[in-house]
Amino acid sequence: MTRLVECIPNFSEGQCPEIIQSIADAIISVDTARILDIHSDRDHNRSVISFISKPEQAVEAGFRAIKKAWELINMASHRGVHPRIGACDVFPFVPLDGMTMDNAVLLASELGKRVGEELGIPVYLYEFAARTEERKNLANIRRGQYEGLLKSIAEDPNRSPDFGPAKLNLKSGATAIGARNALIAFNVFLNTEDKAIGRKISNSISESQGGFKCVKSLAFEIESRKQIQISMNLTDYKVTSIGKVYEKIKSEADKMGVDIVSSEIIGLIPFDSAADIVNFNIRVEGFSKSKILEERIKQVTKADIN
Amino acid sequence: MTRLVECIPNFSEGQCPEIIQSIADAIISVDTARILDIHSDRDHNRSVISFISKPEQAVEAGFRAIKKAWELINMASHRGVHPRIGACDVFPFVPLDGMTMDNAVLLASELGKRVGEELGIPVYLYEFAARTEERKNLANIRRGQYEGLLKSIAEDPNRSPDFGPAKLNLKSGATAIGARNALIAFNVFLNTEDKAIGRKISNSISESQGGFKCVKSLAFEIESRKQIQISMNLTDYKVTSIGKVYEKIKSEADKMGVDIVSSEIIGLIPFDSAADIVNFNIRVEGFSKSKILEERIKQVTKADIN
Repeated sequence: MTRLVECIPNFSEGQCPEIIQSIADAIISVDTARILDIHSDRDHNRSVISFISKPEQAVEAGFRAIKKAWELINMASHRGVHPRIGACDVFPFVPLDGMTMDNAVLLASELGKRVGEELGIPVYLYEFAARTEERKNLANIRRGQYEGLLKSIAEDPNRSPDFGPAKLNLKSGATAIGARNALIAFNVFLNTEDKAIGRKISNSISESQGGFKCVKSLAFEIESRKQIQISMNLTDYKVTSIGKVYEKIKSEADKMGVDIVSSEIIGLIPFDSAADIVNFNIRVEGFSKSKILEERIKQVTKADIN
Repeated sequence: MTRLVECIPNFSEGQCPEIIQSIADAIISVDTARILDIHSDRDHNRSVISFISKPEQAVEAGFRAIKKAWELINMASHRGVHPRIGACDVFPFVPLDGMTMDNAVLLASELGKRVGEELGIPVYLYEFAARTEERKNLANIRRGQYEGLLKSIAEDPNRSPDFGPAKLNLKSGATAIGARNALIAFNVFLNTEDKAIGRKISNSISESQGGFKCVKSLAFEIESRKQIQISMNLTDYKVTSIGKVYEKIKSEADKMGVDIVSSEIIGLIPFDSAADIVNFNIRVEGFSKSKILEERIKQVTKADIN
């Protein structure tokens, strides 16, 4: 089996497709790197590039991406509703089949070291790559965002980076680099502009507010759509599925007299999490990959029918 | 591309797994035939075997299956809630990629001829294989079921079979053999034993009762579960999706104070129809195969990463 790692860097640019394309081009200039998905959001002013690569080349691909973002994105003038600390705001490595989390942690450290030393960008290692308990949680690293970090990084020893200078480069800000399990980034849009309703619904599902396990959630005001967005990370869909949060949001929205307009998945989701929707929301008994015609044909014809 | 045909024969036996296994064994005794799925239902007293084969060998595999059913199933003592006319009640050919419906019609005729002549079973060709307008609709062929056909086959010239004698073999009954597009067999269970509620809900979605296009629907009383089952064929999921009928059944059930317990998919469904559920029931904008991680990795690594 080919060992592969998935990287899902987030960049603080969602309005200029040329910049994002340049970053994607920098990634695929590395031999085995392949873009899986690019998702740009104007209101977040943020783009998520999902790519895979052989682990041996993932650090080089990541370095080229962050360097390109450092060249082309200017944090000093960045505005957007999503929390962020830098031009490449966050860069997670996710181990795929044939790779361990320890492997991914090593890649995160290696990339962090190069970004800190060669680009002079403060780097914070997070989640499985974190070197302190506090930095396991990305929200702690991002507290106060770019603007807050600008003030506190030199003064507060707790905010001293794992690599690079304890001084924020005005143009690029800082970068969080980590290793984590696959997560699902799932957003739901509501036909209201009422932030209080958004907060209430977000709190009803967010683990930190006593909601569902393995759900991080924020409510954003999306001006271009005149809607509230419930923006979620499902950090373990086997614990809390897309369908489960969707139903909860729907029932909470019903109570407050608002409707779900639509939803979106940022990046990619594992097949099983889509099967969960069939299972949970349509209550299909025992639904699995083997019930999908194309998949099942592949299974039975693999070896010998050709 | 390997040309493949899918066959989804339905047999009037759902209580004795050994009989169904013998039929499946008869199918795979043919070189390129592969079983995709076996679904047995005790209350319907019926089993659905989904298999694929190269077209050149599909008729032989089908003939062996029907012959085995003719040997092992006795219609004279068969009881079950699903309409049926014979031991192998219905045998559809579905053209897959690389095959046309005309090809499938030829296979149906060829199998019908062999079953009629060699086993002496009356065979009715249906849907795309039908030779009269009336027989395009399987329900017309199955009218009165096995018991009704027993009386009328010799007397009513309209019921004269396309192949085989105009006389019902008591043990095996008759068989409908046809060619059709892929359909989705989808059942929903309700926590009620009230047949009137079942009929009302079934009528609300059935095309013949003014419901959704491309939906055939019946309500059955499922004794072993003490539930009503809404049993559907979705003949074109691109016109009416699983999610759409599910939501309609749910809202009708709500009105009558009953709940959906669960649902089931008989046989297999195309990937796109599962994606439709994600799209329709979770309202995910632009959901497609390319949003599934495993699928997308296959797409980008196909040629050259290994």
